[in-house]
Amino acid sequence: MRVSELSRSSGVPVATIKYYLREGLLPRGETTSPNQARYDDAHLRRLRLIRALVEVGGLPIATVREVLSAVDDPDVGLHAMLGRTVYAITGDVGASGSLDEAQADLERAVSHVGWEVTPDAPALAGARSVLARMHELGHGPGEGTLHAWAEAADRAAEGDLAAIGRTDDREDAAETALVGTVLGDALLAALRRIAQESRSAQLYRTDS
Amino acid sequence: MRVSELSRSSGVPVATIKYYLREGLLPRGETTSPNQARYDDAHLRRLRLIRALVEVGGLPIATVREVLSAVDDPDVGLHAMLGRTVYAITGDVGASGSLDEAQADLERAVSHVGWEVTPDAPALAGARSVLARMHELGHGPGEGTLHAWAEAADRAAEGDLAAIGRTDDREDAAETALVGTVLGDALLAALRRIAQESRSAQLYRTDS
Repeated sequence: MRVSELSRSSGVPVATIKYYLREGLLPRGETTSPNQARYDDAHLRRLRLIRALVEVGGLPIATVREVLSAVDDPDVGLHAMLGRTVYAITGDVGASGSLDEAQADLERAVSHVGWEVTPDAPALAGARSVLARMHELGHGPGEGTLHAWAEAADRAAEGDLAAIGRTDDREDAAETALVGTVLGDALLAALRRIAQESRSAQLYRTDS
Repeated sequence: MRVSELSRSSGVPVATIKYYLREGLLPRGETTSPNQARYDDAHLRRLRLIRALVEVGGLPIATVREVLSAVDDPDVGLHAMLGRTVYAITGDVGASGSLDEAQADLERAVSHVGWEVTPDAPALAGARSVLARMHELGHGPGEGTLHAWAEAADRAAEGDLAAIGRTDDREDAAETALVGTVLGDALLAALRRIAQESRSAQLYRTDS
């Protein structure tokens, strides 16, 4: 299909598609004349993936390029690729507040569930920063809450790995991990609010 | 303290503090002269809360005002206040893809855990939109993954309600819910990545 059809099918404007091509997020089409290229369903799929990562996940373009290059690199093994993908999409909110209390919380959470994680994993720094902010606000989690959150994260990750394990195709597994992690964050946040409403209604029903 | 000290203690520039005052996010200080006002620790706490909601949660200023007004309204019962807070911070990524498959997934998740939720809860629409995007990308969750995510969300919410239940003070409970939900999303995302790395290492250790 031509770029105009690719735009219609994906809902992404032609100018945005050309920007993604220049930035190397989308592979070039097959050149059919000096001014025209032909695109196929793989381009359409990739374009929808980019759009979801940007619109739902709020990822910057540079991050999208980084994770897609990890997905596209056939020399990277699955665990390493998942690591590169997950590392790239893990932000840090910046340290503020008490890092000592936050570090103690984090160690409690990790040992409660028995996670094995490399000490320089960006997610450790990310979690520590958020916990420090919570303590700064006077709302550090109590032990029961911390344990519940760690168990929740572990159960979610069990579901993530089950999804990745359903396919034998490396690129498909990579995409599953990427979509599951980025869109999964948004889904889990929404499901958590549904669960909060349900549990809050059971506890505080009389007051409304 | 004066506005300059409030700025130093909070790390928030004076111009930003004045903007929050104009927008009604931060209550006015006690006027001590035509050009000066005095602020106290309650202002400092509120300022740190606003900053965390904006910087960590990425909430727009209008949403911060909306949730703070729910927190500050003593006539609203706790469950209703939690509802207003959680509803205000629940975004919708916009429908795209198959809403039928997404609706079926959502109903399966809700009935799997046994949630009771009002049909017009924004989080239901939010979850449905994300699920529709996943299906559009060819990565709708399988049953095992969906059940794991629903259980994870429910366990997280159990931790949230435990945190809220630790205080008898209504405003403190409201703040706990707000901080736990908004900063908790970021924390749970980070903990999930730690859990993914740990579980991925166990499954795919040989390939790196």
